[in-house]
Amino acid sequence: MAETMKAVRKSTAGPGAELVEVGVPAPAEDEVLVKVASTSICGTDLHIYQWNEWANRRIVNLPQTLGHELAGEVVEIGSRVHSVKIGDYVSAETHIPCGRCWACRTDKQHICLNLKILGVDRDGCFATYITVPETVIWQNDRAIPPDQASAQEPLGNAVDTVLAEDVAGKTVLVTGCGPLGILTILVARASGATTVFATDISGYRLELAKTAGADHVFNVTEADPVPEIRELTGGIGVEVLLELSGAQAALDQGLEALAYGGRVSLLGLFDSKVKVDLNDGVIFKNARIYGIVGRRMYTTWYKTKRLLASGVLDISCAITHTFPLEKYAEAFELMASGKSGKIVLHP
Amino acid sequence: MAETMKAVRKSTAGPGAELVEVGVPAPAEDEVLVKVASTSICGTDLHIYQWNEWANRRIVNLPQTLGHELAGEVVEIGSRVHSVKIGDYVSAETHIPCGRCWACRTDKQHICLNLKILGVDRDGCFATYITVPETVIWQNDRAIPPDQASAQEPLGNAVDTVLAEDVAGKTVLVTGCGPLGILTILVARASGATTVFATDISGYRLELAKTAGADHVFNVTEADPVPEIRELTGGIGVEVLLELSGAQAALDQGLEALAYGGRVSLLGLFDSKVKVDLNDGVIFKNARIYGIVGRRMYTTWYKTKRLLASGVLDISCAITHTFPLEKYAEAFELMASGKSGKIVLHP
Amino acid sequence: MAETMKAVRKSTAGPGAELVEVGVPAPAEDEVLVKVASTSICGTDLHIYQWNEWANRRIVNLPQTLGHELAGEVVEIGSRVHSVKIGDYVSAETHIPCGRCWACRTDKQHICLNLKILGVDRDGCFATYITVPETVIWQNDRAIPPDQASAQEPLGNAVDTVLAEDVAGKTVLVTGCGPLGILTILVARASGATTVFATDISGYRLELAKTAGADHVFNVTEADPVPEIRELTGGIGVEVLLELSGAQAALDQGLEALAYGGRVSLLGLFDSKVKVDLNDGVIFKNARIYGIVGRRMYTTWYKTKRLLASGVLDISCAITHTFPLEKYAEAFELMASGKSGKIVLHP
Amino acid sequence: MAETMKAVRKSTAGPGAELVEVGVPAPAEDEVLVKVASTSICGTDLHIYQWNEWANRRIVNLPQTLGHELAGEVVEIGSRVHSVKIGDYVSAETHIPCGRCWACRTDKQHICLNLKILGVDRDGCFATYITVPETVIWQNDRAIPPDQASAQEPLGNAVDTVLAEDVAGKTVLVTGCGPLGILTILVARASGATTVFATDISGYRLELAKTAGADHVFNVTEADPVPEIRELTGGIGVEVLLELSGAQAALDQGLEALAYGGRVSLLGLFDSKVKVDLNDGVIFKNARIYGIVGRRMYTTWYKTKRLLASGVLDISCAITHTFPLEKYAEAFELMASGKSGKIVLHP
Repeated sequence: MAETMKAVRKSTAGPGAELVEVGVPAPAEDEVLVKVASTSICGTDLHIYQWNEWANRRIVNLPQTLGHELAGEVVEIGSRVHSVKIGDYVSAETHIPCGRCWACRTDKQHICLNLKILGVDRDGCFATYITVPETVIWQNDRAIPPDQASAQEPLGNAVDTVLAEDVAGKTVLVTGCGPLGILTILVARASGATTVFATDISGYRLELAKTAGADHVFNVTEADPVPEIRELTGGIGVEVLLELSGAQAALDQGLEALAYGGRVSLLGLFDSKVKVDLNDGVIFKNARIYGIVGRRMYTTWYKTKRLLASGVLDISCAITHTFPLEKYAEAFELMASGKSGKIVLHP
Repeated sequence: MAETMKAVRKSTAGPGAELVEVGVPAPAEDEVLVKVASTSICGTDLHIYQWNEWANRRIVNLPQTLGHELAGEVVEIGSRVHSVKIGDYVSAETHIPCGRCWACRTDKQHICLNLKILGVDRDGCFATYITVPETVIWQNDRAIPPDQASAQEPLGNAVDTVLAEDVAGKTVLVTGCGPLGILTILVARASGATTVFATDISGYRLELAKTAGADHVFNVTEADPVPEIRELTGGIGVEVLLELSGAQAALDQGLEALAYGGRVSLLGLFDSKVKVDLNDGVIFKNARIYGIVGRRMYTTWYKTKRLLASGVLDISCAITHTFPLEKYAEAFELMASGKSGKIVLHP
Repeated sequence: MAETMKAVRKSTAGPGAELVEVGVPAPAEDEVLVKVASTSICGTDLHIYQWNEWANRRIVNLPQTLGHELAGEVVEIGSRVHSVKIGDYVSAETHIPCGRCWACRTDKQHICLNLKILGVDRDGCFATYITVPETVIWQNDRAIPPDQASAQEPLGNAVDTVLAEDVAGKTVLVTGCGPLGILTILVARASGATTVFATDISGYRLELAKTAGADHVFNVTEADPVPEIRELTGGIGVEVLLELSGAQAALDQGLEALAYGGRVSLLGLFDSKVKVDLNDGVIFKNARIYGIVGRRMYTTWYKTKRLLASGVLDISCAITHTFPLEKYAEAFELMASGKSGKIVLHP
Repeated sequence: MAETMKAVRKSTAGPGAELVEVGVPAPAEDEVLVKVASTSICGTDLHIYQWNEWANRRIVNLPQTLGHELAGEVVEIGSRVHSVKIGDYVSAETHIPCGRCWACRTDKQHICLNLKILGVDRDGCFATYITVPETVIWQNDRAIPPDQASAQEPLGNAVDTVLAEDVAGKTVLVTGCGPLGILTILVARASGATTVFATDISGYRLELAKTAGADHVFNVTEADPVPEIRELTGGIGVEVLLELSGAQAALDQGLEALAYGGRVSLLGLFDSKVKVDLNDGVIFKNARIYGIVGRRMYTTWYKTKRLLASGVLDISCAITHTFPLEKYAEAFELMASGKSGKIVLHP
């Protein structure tokens, strides 16, 4: 094994990142070292790259390697690692739980009270190698190619968003068709949703939504989608609203389009507090709302793996671009333009 | 049976109501005539009495008798009534469903798309007699006295608010201690909640909350209750938030006090749109929110009846005042003052 | 409209039925008259035709027309019918609820305490016309052809069997591949099940199961399927068992193949009491079991309609044979042989 | 600290146990040493003591100390223990999960595929001291006295049995009034069950059931309880069946007494396979059955702790006898007689 490696790192508190040659890290006794085959870019990576207000407040360890979605091969293991071995084909859960707090002890490791996050609180995977605690290593199915295996992590968000309650035989509206929105449409489609509506403000993304299987797409910069959605659902509205945009207008439209007794999953983060018509949008509708964050550890991962490995779910259309790691700047620029689905880097 | 009766009616679009002598109505073929023993006042009645903006928009049939919570005896039945007979001791569900729409046909009669409401869309029960469709007649248990039987209707709201998910072994925060808040505290207590926190802006109501069994009450005009709630829950926050106030500040505090993975029921109606911190209050918390309206027909009524008839739930402390029907103006005034729990009128 | 019509009737308590010319019935004031386009045969019809012990005990009105699964056109309506009109393209729910009992009033009309059944307690639809109470009329989507629309009734059983909990991302075992088993496989497949195992004792049915999308089929007369199922699920077993056979051995194998924390739906009826290993099969497994009967009225029908009309679910492979009504005897014989999926009759 | 201690041990494969003086064990690096204040006897302990067929097959490490329900004080901790410190007042979960298998990684640690059990697979707590892995240490609330804290473990079984679904406002039948049945009655009562029926074959136990709050108790050796239960529930039957007896007749009666749409929890273990009327008892009833084993780790423990510490649940009547550890033989004899509730030993 080489002694040094490539890594995309943020050295100083400010926009940008640089490709540097750094030493290959050694795994601690409860960690493994993974050689990264594919790593995909998340919105969080872009926020850190662009160094927005959240990143400035949140990231404290500099220099630090970016990235947290990955697939690769285990090349070294710590002395106390028991369930992972060299040669394993793995991905990693981004949320590193303490395992001992109230949340961890009540089936909520994904929202551990002492959560550490890969690529946020410790070095990430935009590099040739990464060390990962054994506790968050996920054994991949070899039927899933590395680009898709890397995307299992955000796909897990989409799975939990869609399957907070079942969707089989139901009508679904997805507001926001960025990479996560596209994955969400694919999961809804694979899980038996009968009509999938999708809204966005980007023609590119709405085209992608159609490719992913949305039946009806609406560019909300052109017209209010609610009357047509209501008409296409026989006046009932959609039984399921999956909010991925984090946009006030999308939330308003979504709640207006929601059927009585409907269900909402919220995954998209909002820039600030939003105004909500709780009376007409939630209370009188007898609606149920689920806040979705992370992925259930590891119920969601098992579902996600099976969906991909069985071929029931094919997410290849959601991965629109791949770049060598060296072209990370180009990749970030493309992602910022909104004209991409999921982007994968190859170290 | 007399040919005329007393009724508290609104004759013209504006504040107030008057006690008049009107003809006893005859039940239609699918209706029954009930002699009212007890009738309780709801916030909706007060809105109509005061003729607020909602009432002005919503109420179209004038003159009309007010009131919709009642208990009494069936004295006459229509020719097509089969499940109710003269002498039955009954109450009534306020929501009159059409029975044929999509909502009615999918276990959601309480939010029927063609809903008619007693005392809003047709004459109510602040009178000696009222006609009620057979479909919404509820057979009372004779172990429940009329004043409490009349309060089963709002109690049903409280039951659905509390039991949207179970509360046994859990910590609960009730924001808003008006009559419905008091009933909610009582139901939470009877259903195994282990610590009940309550907030309000009225000392009178907080005293009532204590009597109803709240462990810790907070006057939010004096201090922010969140730090103390958090401390009293070992830093975890409350697992269940029951929002009855319809107040922006209460919602903010409630979501802030909510534990990760917590559950929220929203029953209180808001004056307008509210600002919600969906990121920190719902999404990152992996919270679930239920909009509650009406009562499940009639799952909730069965639970409510059993809770009262068995003695497991005693709501006598929530009924703070009774008046003869003639003193309706005094009753409304008292209710508007906020210095009451549930108020019952006796025709 | 003609004054007489064809009908397949049972005249006397014993095996067989006869095709007779009878008067076209007139709908009562709350009924509609439907001209039958397609009617499918259920196992219950076969039991009545063959006059088994259950039929002998249960059927009291003779002569009586057989059949309860149908699609057709409304040609006449009673004077009190409001939600159905002449020309409507309809099917019917077989279970006619009283609408007033405890079960009906708690979202359980399908198991009404005073249930009447089409084709069992009153004349059925193996005829040119049938009268049906308005309350159980179902408005079909015109995108669904009559043969499939008729099969919505048993398909609803399959939908409830599969979707008692969600199956997306999960492994499923279907024991019993008769017509309902085939529909169940199709629904599981459309709802995101990732691996579908199926068992039966008939090669014909197992071939049909494969066509319907089962990944692995097992003829249990040849070998115990459990070891292979366990191996193919990585030692975990199946997360979902859907029991359609009503056979002791299938139940034993199913519970043995079930994963820890797994879910079971029971739809197949058993000839008598069965022996169950509750310790190892249910308790130590922390399993959940759902008894399934009828279809949720009408939540299930809405799902079923949408699944078919959207094309998400295609059940054409499950309908293996069609006959003119006159050839009912041939159809029953074929069905009794076990060498068929769903059989449709055309009056 | 002393170098030796008292322990009730089984030395040879056969009935009985002996009180011996053995060395105080040293905790491994991930274990703690607990000084036992109270330890309660479980049916499993009695099986091992009596050396029944199950014990003969299951117990392989002899000599071994019996017992697994305890409360005590931490007196020493291993070098890698982080969440427990000397002086902590603790109990222990009996099920020691591996933390890495599929079950552990999908919120099912209590049914870990590699489960080790305190007092079965390693030395138990019928001794002055016991070593316990940090992972299964439970921090007690000091408001709960040691005898009751020790009983939290079986109480957790009762909590999961009762609260598999909520019971507030519902009627409940508990079949089997041994120590777990009594705890179950107490939990149902505290959680809002409105009528609690209880059956057993022992007059002593039925008296205890009454003390615990059962409304109606039935000695099934005297009469079939089903007709009276049905009458007392208005013909509907019980909405919830909690089966604790492991007896064929109790299961039969319970399913017969169960209401349409009812729920069943099975906790009692059966001697062998049982005959079940799945048609009438489960399928036609649209019933739901939950197999209950162990306690959810640690959702159930949190509920249990809060119920006891808040005073909402008082289990003192369920603890009928206490003995010094030395009188273990007398305690086992009493327990075998059936004339006891929970028995506590004090080392």
